[in-house]
Amino acid sequence: MSRYKLLSEIDSPADLKKLKLNQLEYLCEEVREYIIEHTSINPGHLGSSLGVIELAVAIHYVFDTPNDKLVWDVGHQAYAHKILTGRRKEFTQNRKYKGISGFPRMTESPYDAFGVGHSSTSISSILGMAMGAVLSANTYRNHIAVIGDGSMTGGMAFEGLNHAGITQANMLVILNDNGMAIDENVGALNSYLTKLTTSVPYNSFRRKIWQMFSHKDERGYPIRNIIKQIQDVIKSSLLKNSNLFEALGFRYFGPINGHDIVSMVKVLRGLKHIRGAKVLHCVTVKGKGLHEAEISQTLYHAPGRFDKETGKILEIAFDPGKVEKYQKVFGETICELAQTNEKIIGITPAMASGCSLDIMMKKYPHRTFDVGIAEQHAVTFSAGMSTDGFIPFCNIYSTFLQRAYDQIIHDVALQNLHVIFCIDRAGLVGEDGSTHHGTYDLAFLRCIPNMIIAAPLNELDLRNMMFTATLTNAPFAIRYPRGEGVRNNWKNQPFEKYEIGKGICLKEGNDLAIISIGHIGNTALQVANTLTDEGIYNIAVYDIRFLKPIDNNLLHTVLSQHKIVVTLENGSAIGGLGSAVSEFITIHNYKNKLEIIGIPDRFIEQGTVEELQQECGLDYEHVLTTVKQLLSTSTMNYEL
Amino acid sequence: MSRYKLLSEIDSPADLKKLKLNQLEYLCEEVREYIIEHTSINPGHLGSSLGVIELAVAIHYVFDTPNDKLVWDVGHQAYAHKILTGRRKEFTQNRKYKGISGFPRMTESPYDAFGVGHSSTSISSILGMAMGAVLSANTYRNHIAVIGDGSMTGGMAFEGLNHAGITQANMLVILNDNGMAIDENVGALNSYLTKLTTSVPYNSFRRKIWQMFSHKDERGYPIRNIIKQIQDVIKSSLLKNSNLFEALGFRYFGPINGHDIVSMVKVLRGLKHIRGAKVLHCVTVKGKGLHEAEISQTLYHAPGRFDKETGKILEIAFDPGKVEKYQKVFGETICELAQTNEKIIGITPAMASGCSLDIMMKKYPHRTFDVGIAEQHAVTFSAGMSTDGFIPFCNIYSTFLQRAYDQIIHDVALQNLHVIFCIDRAGLVGEDGSTHHGTYDLAFLRCIPNMIIAAPLNELDLRNMMFTATLTNAPFAIRYPRGEGVRNNWKNQPFEKYEIGKGICLKEGNDLAIISIGHIGNTALQVANTLTDEGIYNIAVYDIRFLKPIDNNLLHTVLSQHKIVVTLENGSAIGGLGSAVSEFITIHNYKNKLEIIGIPDRFIEQGTVEELQQECGLDYEHVLTTVKQLLSTSTMNYEL
Repeated sequence: MSRYKLLSEIDSPADLKKLKLNQLEYLCEEVREYIIEHTSINPGHLGSSLGVIELAVAIHYVFDTPNDKLVWDVGHQAYAHKILTGRRKEFTQNRKYKGISGFPRMTESPYDAFGVGHSSTSISSILGMAMGAVLSANTYRNHIAVIGDGSMTGGMAFEGLNHAGITQANMLVILNDNGMAIDENVGALNSYLTKLTTSVPYNSFRRKIWQMFSHKDERGYPIRNIIKQIQDVIKSSLLKNSNLFEALGFRYFGPINGHDIVSMVKVLRGLKHIRGAKVLHCVTVKGKGLHEAEISQTLYHAPGRFDKETGKILEIAFDPGKVEKYQKVFGETICELAQTNEKIIGITPAMASGCSLDIMMKKYPHRTFDVGIAEQHAVTFSAGMSTDGFIPFCNIYSTFLQRAYDQIIHDVALQNLHVIFCIDRAGLVGEDGSTHHGTYDLAFLRCIPNMIIAAPLNELDLRNMMFTATLTNAPFAIRYPRGEGVRNNWKNQPFEKYEIGKGICLKEGNDLAIISIGHIGNTALQVANTLTDEGIYNIAVYDIRFLKPIDNNLLHTVLSQHKIVVTLENGSAIGGLGSAVSEFITIHNYKNKLEIIGIPDRFIEQGTVEELQQECGLDYEHVLTTVKQLLSTSTMNYEL
Repeated sequence: MSRYKLLSEIDSPADLKKLKLNQLEYLCEEVREYIIEHTSINPGHLGSSLGVIELAVAIHYVFDTPNDKLVWDVGHQAYAHKILTGRRKEFTQNRKYKGISGFPRMTESPYDAFGVGHSSTSISSILGMAMGAVLSANTYRNHIAVIGDGSMTGGMAFEGLNHAGITQANMLVILNDNGMAIDENVGALNSYLTKLTTSVPYNSFRRKIWQMFSHKDERGYPIRNIIKQIQDVIKSSLLKNSNLFEALGFRYFGPINGHDIVSMVKVLRGLKHIRGAKVLHCVTVKGKGLHEAEISQTLYHAPGRFDKETGKILEIAFDPGKVEKYQKVFGETICELAQTNEKIIGITPAMASGCSLDIMMKKYPHRTFDVGIAEQHAVTFSAGMSTDGFIPFCNIYSTFLQRAYDQIIHDVALQNLHVIFCIDRAGLVGEDGSTHHGTYDLAFLRCIPNMIIAAPLNELDLRNMMFTATLTNAPFAIRYPRGEGVRNNWKNQPFEKYEIGKGICLKEGNDLAIISIGHIGNTALQVANTLTDEGIYNIAVYDIRFLKPIDNNLLHTVLSQHKIVVTLENGSAIGGLGSAVSEFITIHNYKNKLEIIGIPDRFIEQGTVEELQQECGLDYEHVLTTVKQLLSTSTMNYEL
């Protein structure tokens, strides 16, 4: 830690407060270096964390955390916050199994006032705390939400602003405006913020305000009078609310440079003494301080391992020629389909690069829509397009699809519209942890009438399912995990239309049957092959392919031929394939013993996918052991 | 129809267009009278429909529907629209079983461009169609969304505006500003709109615009130049975007009087020729034209039967002294609990009168929050309060809870926060139909870790469950239907704390067991008693009380003692109690025959609750028949 002279002494914000104002700049550089050093070898969310170092230092320097409440929206940018609040050493285990979460977690630290991961929750949650303070007649406590301009596009943030603006809440929303979501931020709000930060007369006016600010006593009392004067000036404008945030009942301050630590501290000191609902607009640079990250912001959002000196991203270990992720299959296949069918549209709420829709975006820019962080809108916008004869592929990560549940039911399924949901990041996602696992989609979609729910076993399957979906006039969901498939030959293969609701037998066998859905069926096959090789048991493997409509013929065959059946799914053990087969067994009065293998009924933390599969019993070893136990305990116990 | 001289000739908008401009006022009066006449005897959404008659007439008079696309947000205000678009006669069967829906439905008429029911979907869906037109190079088609100021508070509307504002979409958002949701509209946006409509300098400026408008050629071409000039004036203001909607990239027009039909027609004719994204701000009066409805807007939102001359609401047939709805139990019990525990808070997204939280609102105004139509915010705001030691009761209708699914998982359950969800309108709701049934909550909540899910059998149960929930530091959901319970004695009864996850036996019996959840257990009891009275069979009835955690001991007892088991729930037959019992049977290798009775896997239309229960097989007769069949077919077929 010798390079971290100041940082090595900081075990809590109390230590931070011992520093002089002019030392903070150096501290920020140390924090920056520390994040770069550790993130370069232990990958994480680099870009956004580098962008808010000064902000994190300033907040903890000025405010009385954890008594004052601080919520980081999304929270992947909170590395500096974690490092400054007693987790400097633990940061080496960031996002690791049994290490600390990559996001703020209430269970991890009292400084994490609210757990985050999904976007746009900070205003609602901090308002809850601020209203708590009102009810407790606590007029001293401060409540701060730090929210990016990307998160601001989520409707929930607007709902929070709309409520906050009529309350007595003492809260400060710090708008961290870097012009980016993971990809470039989109939407009218983004254009508006750009205008706000570039308007010359407006900014000269604002500059005067900040000059007034900086010359005043730090205790802030005189500042209040100035604020009053300024407000009067603002009020003289035509509408009395010249600014979007002011229209919603907030006092707006800024824009200010979010990397000028001295100004930031002074401004926050001033704002601390102004009660009510306030917005501070900070302009920051994503990836600040690492040249490569500043210029390639999407790439360096979460770059994997990189050289900490040059910033150069290190080669990925395996051969890129051979490894094709499901994401690439999606991205290239939609382009192929779009080429022959001009009605095909691609839609994503701010996950264009993550899901590979960016491939189509380059090829068919007018037929591809990144609608910003706005899952609800993405789904109903897709529904609207489909009423006009288009065939939208709406690509949303499983965990974020939860945000659009009502729209799936009410706007798509109820009207039986031809919208194709490509549900990426289904199942355990790994290092992003509990907020991001795609655990529930099979369960929450299965109860919806009209829905077709499919999951590919491999790359070729995904390709054919996408093709099948374009030919099927109904709501059609295809869920698949992040990462690589089985490296089968999918490119340029002729498309095959699958029969809806028809599963397949992957391997015959008499002793037991595994019914699986999706990519995890490969684990089932592996287990079955091991047993065959061992020469004692011979088990069957069925890929159900469609959770809904489910293949009744296949189930009748399997259940009448096998005493013991195992279902295997990379999703909640409650409500998905296991439940569907259970219902089928009891309704048809079969007598089979059923073992449901799925994600257990608790929230799963972060780790590698392999570690988490082991924890959940979804890995090869556990499935093999389970099957062997079921076979050996006594097949005599079970009957057909 | 002799009183409806003009209206009786209008079978489509083509007939409407034959009228002269000065006849429209009379037509509006006829439409108003027609709605009042029929809604007075066949209850429906009166207030909002009376408020938009001029708007509906003007839109269909000016625009080329159904080629031009028109979406009514929420859609309960679309009665005039339905009457003018070929459904005048069918309107007598409005909201009736096998009649027409109380909401626009694509399957009902080509004039219903998009099915609605839930709030805030109109901007996203109309934008989908408008972008469809852009892709099809159709520059002529118009796209109109009519959205209330209440619906505007839903975050999804903001997401739609944010996207629309950067597109080439040709769309007109008509903001129907009546200052109301079902209850009075709340939030900063509402205050802002009020300022906008009452600001003197602003309105004198706007008035000039409209005067210019009204003197111009109806084809609209000259108007465009004026618009240009006006815009230049607006642009000279400090921020270049003086208005909230303009900040989001829309051109803002208004406010105008939404009941002045002649002006409305002229303005729409003008706007028709202005391409791009536009907002027209109309001020209307909810209940317009019926004095009683104008002064008691919440009461006349959906008043039931009333005297069409005086507007007086007719007495409800049954004795109000005896009938106590679950809603009243909720409303009074929360007040009782709040009286002894100052940490208890009431929160609802715009359903205060519907769920009876208005009782607490009057008694404890500072501890009760109507956050507007904003389910997502309501849940995370509740979560925020609970981190500060408060115990929020968050009351949301089952169908609307779908909007907050992600927040339940990510903000409440994952953090295991003490938020109590009172889920009103669970199960079949009756006349509101397919968009409003509370079908899926049991299924979509059951897969969420940490959730406690309970449902009361009767009023006293609801009371005790609410009490139990306040003592249980975990996410706790209580779901109950709209309407009356069993009229048991619940008032002022001492509170009883229930054991979490413990069901009860309501009636012993040997021949078969029904396991039910919630109010529908009373039907099970009724069936059991009938059978006992008949003297042939003696069946048992168990009330599981908690779907999660489920009572394993009770299930072991029931399954080991009864060959045949029936589950009964007023919710989706997929994913709820039936699934839970199925899983239990197969995992523990029981051999029971199971019959799952629940809402079948299709969307259920409108009708009385009784009619729909019959259709779904949830009524007494069907349950009785099913049980008898199961018993008689042959108990020999089934084994323990």
